[in-house]
Amino acid sequence: MWELLITLIAGLTALGFAAYTAIKLEKIEVKNARMKEISEAIQEGAKAFLNREYQTLIWYVIIVAVILGALSIWTDILSLSPVAFVLGAFTSALAGNVGMRIATASNAKAAEASSDSMSKGLSVAFSGGTVMGMSVVGLGTLGLILMYVTARFGAGYSLENATSVLYSFGFGASSIALFARVGGGIYTKAADVGADLVGKVEEGIPEDDPRNPAVIADNVGDNVGDVAGMGADLFESYVDSIIATMALGAITIKIAGMNFTDYAVALPLFIASIGIFSSIIGAFVVHLNRGANVYATLNKGLIVSSVVMAILSAAAVYVLMDTLDPFWAILSGLGAGIVIGLSTEYYTSEQKPPAQRIAEASQSGAATNIIEGLSNGMMSTWIPVLSVATAMYIAYEVADIYGIALSAVGMLSTLGYSLATDAYGPVADNAAGVAEMAGAGHEVRERCEALDAVGNTTASMGKGFAIGSAAITALALISVYATTSGLTDADLSLNKPRVMIGIFIGALMPFLFSAMAMGAVGRTAEKIVTEVRRQFREITGLMEGKAKPDYKSCIAISTEGAIHEMMLPALLTILVPIVIGILLGKAALGGLLAGAISTGFLMALFLANAGGSWDNAKKYIESGHLGGKGTPVHAAAVVGDTVGDPCKDTAGPSLNILIKLMSIVALVFIPLF
Amino acid sequence: MWELLITLIAGLTALGFAAYTAIKLEKIEVKNARMKEISEAIQEGAKAFLNREYQTLIWYVIIVAVILGALSIWTDILSLSPVAFVLGAFTSALAGNVGMRIATASNAKAAEASSDSMSKGLSVAFSGGTVMGMSVVGLGTLGLILMYVTARFGAGYSLENATSVLYSFGFGASSIALFARVGGGIYTKAADVGADLVGKVEEGIPEDDPRNPAVIADNVGDNVGDVAGMGADLFESYVDSIIATMALGAITIKIAGMNFTDYAVALPLFIASIGIFSSIIGAFVVHLNRGANVYATLNKGLIVSSVVMAILSAAAVYVLMDTLDPFWAILSGLGAGIVIGLSTEYYTSEQKPPAQRIAEASQSGAATNIIEGLSNGMMSTWIPVLSVATAMYIAYEVADIYGIALSAVGMLSTLGYSLATDAYGPVADNAAGVAEMAGAGHEVRERCEALDAVGNTTASMGKGFAIGSAAITALALISVYATTSGLTDADLSLNKPRVMIGIFIGALMPFLFSAMAMGAVGRTAEKIVTEVRRQFREITGLMEGKAKPDYKSCIAISTEGAIHEMMLPALLTILVPIVIGILLGKAALGGLLAGAISTGFLMALFLANAGGSWDNAKKYIESGHLGGKGTPVHAAAVVGDTVGDPCKDTAGPSLNILIKLMSIVALVFIPLF
Repeated sequence: MWELLITLIAGLTALGFAAYTAIKLEKIEVKNARMKEISEAIQEGAKAFLNREYQTLIWYVIIVAVILGALSIWTDILSLSPVAFVLGAFTSALAGNVGMRIATASNAKAAEASSDSMSKGLSVAFSGGTVMGMSVVGLGTLGLILMYVTARFGAGYSLENATSVLYSFGFGASSIALFARVGGGIYTKAADVGADLVGKVEEGIPEDDPRNPAVIADNVGDNVGDVAGMGADLFESYVDSIIATMALGAITIKIAGMNFTDYAVALPLFIASIGIFSSIIGAFVVHLNRGANVYATLNKGLIVSSVVMAILSAAAVYVLMDTLDPFWAILSGLGAGIVIGLSTEYYTSEQKPPAQRIAEASQSGAATNIIEGLSNGMMSTWIPVLSVATAMYIAYEVADIYGIALSAVGMLSTLGYSLATDAYGPVADNAAGVAEMAGAGHEVRERCEALDAVGNTTASMGKGFAIGSAAITALALISVYATTSGLTDADLSLNKPRVMIGIFIGALMPFLFSAMAMGAVGRTAEKIVTEVRRQFREITGLMEGKAKPDYKSCIAISTEGAIHEMMLPALLTILVPIVIGILLGKAALGGLLAGAISTGFLMALFLANAGGSWDNAKKYIESGHLGGKGTPVHAAAVVGDTVGDPCKDTAGPSLNILIKLMSIVALVFIPLF
Repeated sequence: MWELLITLIAGLTALGFAAYTAIKLEKIEVKNARMKEISEAIQEGAKAFLNREYQTLIWYVIIVAVILGALSIWTDILSLSPVAFVLGAFTSALAGNVGMRIATASNAKAAEASSDSMSKGLSVAFSGGTVMGMSVVGLGTLGLILMYVTARFGAGYSLENATSVLYSFGFGASSIALFARVGGGIYTKAADVGADLVGKVEEGIPEDDPRNPAVIADNVGDNVGDVAGMGADLFESYVDSIIATMALGAITIKIAGMNFTDYAVALPLFIASIGIFSSIIGAFVVHLNRGANVYATLNKGLIVSSVVMAILSAAAVYVLMDTLDPFWAILSGLGAGIVIGLSTEYYTSEQKPPAQRIAEASQSGAATNIIEGLSNGMMSTWIPVLSVATAMYIAYEVADIYGIALSAVGMLSTLGYSLATDAYGPVADNAAGVAEMAGAGHEVRERCEALDAVGNTTASMGKGFAIGSAAITALALISVYATTSGLTDADLSLNKPRVMIGIFIGALMPFLFSAMAMGAVGRTAEKIVTEVRRQFREITGLMEGKAKPDYKSCIAISTEGAIHEMMLPALLTILVPIVIGILLGKAALGGLLAGAISTGFLMALFLANAGGSWDNAKKYIESGHLGGKGTPVHAAAVVGDTVGDPCKDTAGPSLNILIKLMSIVALVFIPLF
């Protein structure tokens, strides 16, 4: 029991730290009335989107819970499954909601603080992200142990059943994550593309110009996509990796020649607890720093929290397990996460050759810009794939399949900190937007821009991290599936055509899903374009700044479009594994997961990094290279940037969830096949 | 023995028919001196490329043969392997060489014949393709039985060894195919993109304008890419599918409860023989037809040859095997091939909604054109994947793993005919080009354009067919690998991390390979652009038509670029399976193949169909829709077309070979791992 107590304390500490940070933020007053007004419009839009989303999701949650309840009567699905599902969905939604409220409330405050100094601006923006990060890890660990304790001690489940009811918790969290990522992704890019196509391209007004009717929707989009979507994505990876490790700990309690015994189930919770404390220490490093180099400060926090994490977890593993073996698995995951982040930065940063080559290719037009970007996106996959393969290899060597799951926990252990740096990005981005729209002073805007630039780097590293952790979490889930499905090794052989058929259909899924997501952005963006054009035409005095645009109509269109368009791809993700499992059996379903994970991982990297490098190639030109803004070279780079938008912010990140959700659906519904 | 005799007769018949067709073509005289001159320039350029390529490949063939010879001394690699390798390489190169010589000699003749009538033009252009188709199937079957007979009766190999020495024959054929596809693909698109970027975009002169210095290189490229490359690709699929079936016949001679016994090894050769006769009948249907509807005529030939094939092979299977079971496997392959062809046509044809939607998306600019095209390419994968999965399922149910290999043979059985319709495309395309450059009369040009339009459809259907057959052939090869590698089913389980690591690295390969191929096109095209610009600048009177451009320098640049750039991706394809096999073992290599095949199949479909639909979206606009040529909508569609070029003609089709070659390399080098 004492191991659960420690996790409880860690979870409560995370929430306490989130609350403390939130209260500190609350006290900061925004004096600039215009900034306040704009920030409130963004907050209102974000809340409106979430509320609208909940109205749809509540039905989904109820229906699935009822189905799970019915199935628990007729099949071997555990009777606590519907409860676990609802709890998982609820905690995921709650974490996203809290994080986003605070993040949207922080933008004007960060802009205000920037008028004092850079480091104050950083501190406030980072605090906004911290609430998100700490809410995710706090609610994740607390939700898990609440469910686990209820099952094990309340309902008297066996150790194995108590861990496997957590799959449904993961299913709930994954479902919410998928809707949040896909819906948020469609919202943000439809608003962005729509705003840019009419505002920047047709009317020639700058980005974030308050005369653009879609500008608030665009800023809301940054939050619903990058904060709520990213948070839900990583919440899912976080809890899924812990669940997979607990389950494997319970099943394979005696692992080939190792004596992990009693603590195999508790270890992931411990590691998560240590990660929470390490993250809090990392956050303090950022707040206490007074230097002006924002990137170096954030990196210092990362290094400190990672090192603390490594040392404490080595000690914990050794004390609990009497061997360091599982620690190497944890370390391999932690290391792979960092390498993937750095690789993402290399292939997308405007200061590195790949993005610069794309900028140079823009000199012979949009076509060569696109070809170079596609090629770069494809090339960018090799380091992450080899990192994950290496981590997997090491983890398996030291601690068998249990080690693979544990390496995912290791990668995600310092999530409290790394998610704070991710979520810092959109807060800084919004701060720059608010400063621009409110016509703040030159210095404030410049500081906000500088914070934003670093935010772009941390956000793109965060994306790589989200993809890598999704792949390794999904791998851990596949191991759980293979172990619990009752299939023998031979059943899951590549020699079995059903397995190969499964792999083919699995490989198809990311393509189908991406096609749908990108199509959805196109359709919704078109509606925004029509509306923005209408307002420019019909509202007299809008271009002269004498009349106000109707921001709310664009927000409503984005919201409805996102909710409407997210349904089909989401349902496809949930239904295909069930249909394949029923029609072709468990072995084919295993193949489906393997195909979806491998291809999905590659496609996610390709889409995210191609998109990121197009974006930064454009920024490279805008910063004055190759002729700068307004040249044909810049126009060509803008094409690439626009193409990259739905790749990197809608389709790509949604694939993270696709692969995890398909795996968890397979686990939950095993009794059906 | 009599079964080998029938195959021998069929092979000789195919070559005889090819020779008969070639002699008939030879007799057609080109009266227009200008046409003759241009055609000869194209022939010369194509020959120059092939000769240059051979100079490099001869070293590759010698080195690999020596390595195989050395390995046959120290390892279990069979001592006839180097001979088989050289023979496979030689027959593949010969088939490509003959086919391309005739195809390039036919373009002016087809243009000339078109001045008589449409159906005469069709007949001549189709004859040009027929020589290619018949050479491939004739040399394929003859090479195979020559090698098989030498091994079995000359060297006294056991049945199993006699079939497995054929892997090296396939390795030789695959190697040549890879170089031909990648080299040809780089050549054709570098020349095309280079010619267009300066000619059409900068100087505003029409396509195929004789003043453009890269115009001959562009026309040569159509042949080295679409004729020689496609021919080598399908030669490889053809022989590999027969080899896989023979090998599985020899190994699993007693298949689960079935009594295929003696004829299991001979059946694929029989089916191929029947396919040759069916194809010749199909060809006669085309020649005898006098109707003006070119597409309907070619389709009629396809239907006749497929139906004849189905009936005769059902009879043969029943007589030889006393059961119809294997016939259903053959039919499932034949059917899947047709469905994939039709699906490709739907997703790429300018007369169908997908390409038209891309054209409409061009109204809001190049970015939306690209997004819509990417999304369409991804979506286009679902029918082919489900077709292959279904064929595989049926084939396995009726005849176990042997059935899967047999379904690949079924899909490729009428290759003599289907390759003729594929290769007809570039002949007609060149005919239109020659007519344009020679300033032929309006009517001739119009007829050639009409022939070309149908050629685009058959070529795109052919591409889908090449991809589908590659996937199913590779699946058959994986089955052979799994059966002959000595691995148990359990070894190849998805539950083994090494297998999953293999799958991940396998999935990475198509991305890496495509990135390299697309980068190669960009680099070579840039050199062409520089040279074309130089000629326009330095050769006085060129734009006025008073001076002739230096075609040869552009041909030389394309040739050198292609040869130089093809080396790295080709070597990667050959070395990665060997390295993984040695480092991580046979099970990881099995995973590598599964990952490469599934992801490679999807990527090949995505790239080919996205490219095809961009191309036709542009053609749709050029035929007068949405404002037609010269509008911003058209300019946006041209961007998509240019992006699509390296996707559909370089990276996409090369992936067919990647997946087959990796599988055959694994088979050949099994004794090393």
